[in-house]
Amino acid sequence: MGLSRSGQKMASLSGLRLIMEDIATTVGSTTGKEWLNLGIGNPAAIPEVRSTWQRMTAQALDLSFNEVSCKYGPSRGMPELVEAIAEYFNRRYGWDIGPKNIVVGPGSQMLCFAAAALFTGPGKDRDTRLVLPMTPDYTGYQGLSLTPGGVTGVAPVLELADERSFRYLFDLPALEGLADVGLLLLSSPSNPVGRCTSRDETERLIAAARRHGVPLVIDNAYGAPFPAIGGSATAPARDESVMNVFSLSKAGLPGERLGFAIADECLIDPMVSFMANSALHAPQLVQSALAHALQADVLDALVTSVISPFYAERRKYAETLLTESLPEDIAWRLYASEGGMFCWIWVDEEWFDDLRLYEALKENGVFIVPGRYFFVDTADGKSMARHAQQCFRISITADPDVIAAGVEVIAAVLKRMRDATIQPSR
Amino acid sequence: MGLSRSGQKMASLSGLRLIMEDIATTVGSTTGKEWLNLGIGNPAAIPEVRSTWQRMTAQALDLSFNEVSCKYGPSRGMPELVEAIAEYFNRRYGWDIGPKNIVVGPGSQMLCFAAAALFTGPGKDRDTRLVLPMTPDYTGYQGLSLTPGGVTGVAPVLELADERSFRYLFDLPALEGLADVGLLLLSSPSNPVGRCTSRDETERLIAAARRHGVPLVIDNAYGAPFPAIGGSATAPARDESVMNVFSLSKAGLPGERLGFAIADECLIDPMVSFMANSALHAPQLVQSALAHALQADVLDALVTSVISPFYAERRKYAETLLTESLPEDIAWRLYASEGGMFCWIWVDEEWFDDLRLYEALKENGVFIVPGRYFFVDTADGKSMARHAQQCFRISITADPDVIAAGVEVIAAVLKRMRDATIQPSR
Repeated sequence: MGLSRSGQKMASLSGLRLIMEDIATTVGSTTGKEWLNLGIGNPAAIPEVRSTWQRMTAQALDLSFNEVSCKYGPSRGMPELVEAIAEYFNRRYGWDIGPKNIVVGPGSQMLCFAAAALFTGPGKDRDTRLVLPMTPDYTGYQGLSLTPGGVTGVAPVLELADERSFRYLFDLPALEGLADVGLLLLSSPSNPVGRCTSRDETERLIAAARRHGVPLVIDNAYGAPFPAIGGSATAPARDESVMNVFSLSKAGLPGERLGFAIADECLIDPMVSFMANSALHAPQLVQSALAHALQADVLDALVTSVISPFYAERRKYAETLLTESLPEDIAWRLYASEGGMFCWIWVDEEWFDDLRLYEALKENGVFIVPGRYFFVDTADGKSMARHAQQCFRISITADPDVIAAGVEVIAAVLKRMRDATIQPSR
Repeated sequence: MGLSRSGQKMASLSGLRLIMEDIATTVGSTTGKEWLNLGIGNPAAIPEVRSTWQRMTAQALDLSFNEVSCKYGPSRGMPELVEAIAEYFNRRYGWDIGPKNIVVGPGSQMLCFAAAALFTGPGKDRDTRLVLPMTPDYTGYQGLSLTPGGVTGVAPVLELADERSFRYLFDLPALEGLADVGLLLLSSPSNPVGRCTSRDETERLIAAARRHGVPLVIDNAYGAPFPAIGGSATAPARDESVMNVFSLSKAGLPGERLGFAIADECLIDPMVSFMANSALHAPQLVQSALAHALQADVLDALVTSVISPFYAERRKYAETLLTESLPEDIAWRLYASEGGMFCWIWVDEEWFDDLRLYEALKENGVFIVPGRYFFVDTADGKSMARHAQQCFRISITADPDVIAAGVEVIAAVLKRMRDATIQPSR
């Protein structure tokens, strides 16, 4: 029973999914061993966040179960929610959007999948690709294209900030010079590195999208208005070329798969049809819970007084630990992150390899995520291969003592990797 | 901002979706007019069903919220649910399935969409199509293919049962003679007509699937084990060529989008990867609710003592009304339905047109669904065009008094349509 071309693409998994499965299987096994898991993709378990969502869901269950769970709903999203979203963004950012500018979907991954299927692939005149304006970015984007080779990225310019930190900058001329672009997609704050696109950079990405005549999808999964896990928490950009995608996952409900997109009607209309044809609509009890939360205006306070400070403090804690613990005589650098849930470390040493680190740490009871999986092939041929194998990601969502113990093991294993390589006897 | 080829396909909606939107908008408008809506696709509002699911959901919310809603889950489905499904089917039908044979998805529409994208479309050697072994079938199938012209059907053989009833039979030789088949898909009991594929027919469809070397997807949305809205409620067929798809929608939770598929590992593995790449996983609170329901074994009793008898009685009621009310001197026939949620009526008269009936009934405050939208183009060129325009669908899920009043209006409007056509002065 043969898979079609799109079938072969969709039946294959990115390397990271295999790693995440390895982590889940190993951590979940009942060997009695205590694992230090810094590979986590889940948001932190913050009691106030959980209790708020549990209360909102219970309210939806009490008040609206018959109406929302026992009936089909519109593919755009429940009118109550769509209106609450429009009111919220108009109030918060002075926008002028209405229901026609909004589509709700079963998670932001699915919304990005829909956008990729709508705007990239074989076309009337040419075949277009999904382009990540900067690689590395979220590994889930690699699975979005229905076409083999349908995802490509632009390598960043490396900027060395100080002895122990670095940054990636957009290579905008390279982005503008690409052919056969169908859609631009990036996360901000980004996974894995925590880069926050500045207002100026966003303007220049919009200009590039205009020049290519394609939409720019900005995935605000870690951004403003919620969860706003980032220093500046810039307001999302509203522009005719931009489709802003928002998610409830990092704001506390990853298991319920709810996201929404905001853009001009000409971009949203096909998204609504895609939802109607593929998933019918997003689950509605959680839609009702989000509508209640927006109407009761509980999210802003939760973000400002709980979520943002929590991650700011946790980042400071993790970065301080790394700075103090990683060996001084190894050329490591920490990404000068501005947000998100991760620390991104680059070990600029010949002997370093991210997969070998993964295996060595696993043997010592610690999980991290190898860096290479966050990179996609670049369209301009500029290779990130060596750099990609010199990076790894750790989560700041683990408990502080887990982070502390994990970082200690990482430091020791790095030393051993270095010593094993430079010993002439080996 | 140009849509790709798949984008143009996915951005277009079937005619039925426009009709359903017309119904929703009109019924939802606040003109104060009372509509008799026999176009409903929702399951009936049965109090015991609603209270059972509300109880199961509340239990999941109380016991498992932190674990299921606040964390990402596996793309195959929550282990607790996947195991409960395996145990249930093994116990109920003597199957020997395990987690590897199961994938949970955000609704059965999405599972069918995944199967279509995996097994049809441009391929290495040839382009294959999604084939409906019998048209008419569920209109949602028309939106599943990413390829323009990617869905085709086989016209049935019409069997006149008695003066007032008829049946569609599979044209198996035509099905076997088709070229470029990628996947077979059908609903049983079917929407719209309520045909239940017999054990013998299923065997022959399996043989056809084998000959084509493709999977046969059987959509049990109305079938056994739940909701089992059908006389015989045949056990689903387990075969290496068959992917059985099950849905929670008609069993009471359409708004929460939960379905699952059962098949051999070689069919399920790519489905799991597709879920991982597109939607990550299905919403988890409802997964937990279903797991509780299966573990507590409440579904079988609910189906046997409430759901099945409810629809059997409602069907008898609607069919009796139609038989007694529709004009004797008009050549109408009722499909000899064996299940599902609808009555399917064929008006075998030259003057009849389903869209004109739709408009005329709308003017008289009644909604039905025109028949033509349930038919797809046939691959063998056998045209169903005229017959397709002579049919319409009414729901048996409306309240009995609504059905009674609606059928009365239908009878009157049919007479008027007939009279208007045969009056020589017009």
